[in-house]
Amino acid sequence: MILSKEPLILVTNDDGITAPGIRALIEVMNTIGRVVVVAPDSPQSGMGHAITVNDTLFCDRMHLDDGPQTEYSCSGTPADCVKLAVNEILDETPDLCVSGINHGSNSSINVIYSGTMSAAVEAGTQEIPAIGFSLLDYDLDANFEQAKKFVKHIALECLQNGLPKGVVLNVNIPKASDTPIKGIKIARQAHAHWIEDFDKRKSPQGRSYYWLSGEFKNLDEGQDTDEWALENNYVSVVPVQFDLTAYKAINELNNWDL
Amino acid sequence: MILSKEPLILVTNDDGITAPGIRALIEVMNTIGRVVVVAPDSPQSGMGHAITVNDTLFCDRMHLDDGPQTEYSCSGTPADCVKLAVNEILDETPDLCVSGINHGSNSSINVIYSGTMSAAVEAGTQEIPAIGFSLLDYDLDANFEQAKKFVKHIALECLQNGLPKGVVLNVNIPKASDTPIKGIKIARQAHAHWIEDFDKRKSPQGRSYYWLSGEFKNLDEGQDTDEWALENNYVSVVPVQFDLTAYKAINELNNWDL
Repeated sequence: MILSKEPLILVTNDDGITAPGIRALIEVMNTIGRVVVVAPDSPQSGMGHAITVNDTLFCDRMHLDDGPQTEYSCSGTPADCVKLAVNEILDETPDLCVSGINHGSNSSINVIYSGTMSAAVEAGTQEIPAIGFSLLDYDLDANFEQAKKFVKHIALECLQNGLPKGVVLNVNIPKASDTPIKGIKIARQAHAHWIEDFDKRKSPQGRSYYWLSGEFKNLDEGQDTDEWALENNYVSVVPVQFDLTAYKAINELNNWDL
Repeated sequence: MILSKEPLILVTNDDGITAPGIRALIEVMNTIGRVVVVAPDSPQSGMGHAITVNDTLFCDRMHLDDGPQTEYSCSGTPADCVKLAVNEILDETPDLCVSGINHGSNSSINVIYSGTMSAAVEAGTQEIPAIGFSLLDYDLDANFEQAKKFVKHIALECLQNGLPKGVVLNVNIPKASDTPIKGIKIARQAHAHWIEDFDKRKSPQGRSYYWLSGEFKNLDEGQDTDEWALENNYVSVVPVQFDLTAYKAINELNNWDL
């Protein structure tokens, strides 16, 4: 595929600027266009679409490897990073924003907790084509080699085709194994939730505290879901919208006595 | 309206357990059912759907006024509070979860940044009917008197009718004024975004830092939106879903060369 100009690509994540996942993503994006990285200076997992409204933000130029990218490390959340990049750091609007590669799944209901996806959504609200990439491997030493090929292919298709208005992509990639990934499935978000099982402990001072700990439950037997695709060794691509209106519910609510 | 049993109502917010908005909400809910409050011990505005995965959570019993409610103050986010309440504190599933009353708007795109709404969505994922309430007044001394009537009416209707599966309500209420609110409109989320204008400063040590600061832009001229309702002095009720799949985009993506 030949793009008509060298695209400007904004790269961010939620695991922090030194995470192996973002370093792999930067490496891939350097083969496609001009890369500017604005990423959190520390891990921001589970940050959802948090923004920093009651604190200051620091954002400093960095050089973390020998690649041609320009990099900034930011004290804020993934959504803050995108806001800072677009409104303060970049002189032109990026052609693409990519977030990740996350260490761990952001499939199904995990999309709502995901800092990785919040960065993509934030870019989407600013009408920038955006993709969040996640690998189903929480390990810091996760193997991103197989994932890189899919990341590049999907990013190039996105640059070529653009995205429908109000839509960003949630891409999840199976964990590296000896079995090659079968391909890519466009999917819907599986109906799933977490059943929490808090781990209750006592501090040395005798005060009770908790660790959040839970079990993921897929409640959806459909074969058109992201969970099905991933279980069957496909990359899942879910188009995600940030108009959260449940249009079908409007008629029902109009029958209430309000 | 007569409810068949005294409902169990979980109350939370994102402005913190001492905020006047949640105190007003507790007062109203005490007239409807048995109230358990599990709310953040400090302000959590702009927290989106953040959860606490890399830190401990404290949750302590409190008595903040003479009302009949049971209260817990929690070190986590609004979503953490709901998870703790449902999985650790409560012996039965609540009949309703209400969040707020937020000091400030959560209309249109603000829903994605909103800690208030993240609590409602978290309850929704656990199949608990849930409503986020917000007043269009950021003032700590905001007047909640007119709002209370609408909060009670909408909560009672929700208990009576239930909510469609996968849907929670985002309720925004005009700021108190001499003009009475005209009524309630079921609405869709207006297409809008923020244009950020970072306030760049220097620390005493000479390091640059930023304050996030922006201007809200309503890009939507529809008269069926939450923004239109609020501008015309109606309470807006938007049904919000957490299946973020952009179903209409699936066909378009299937035309890509993936």
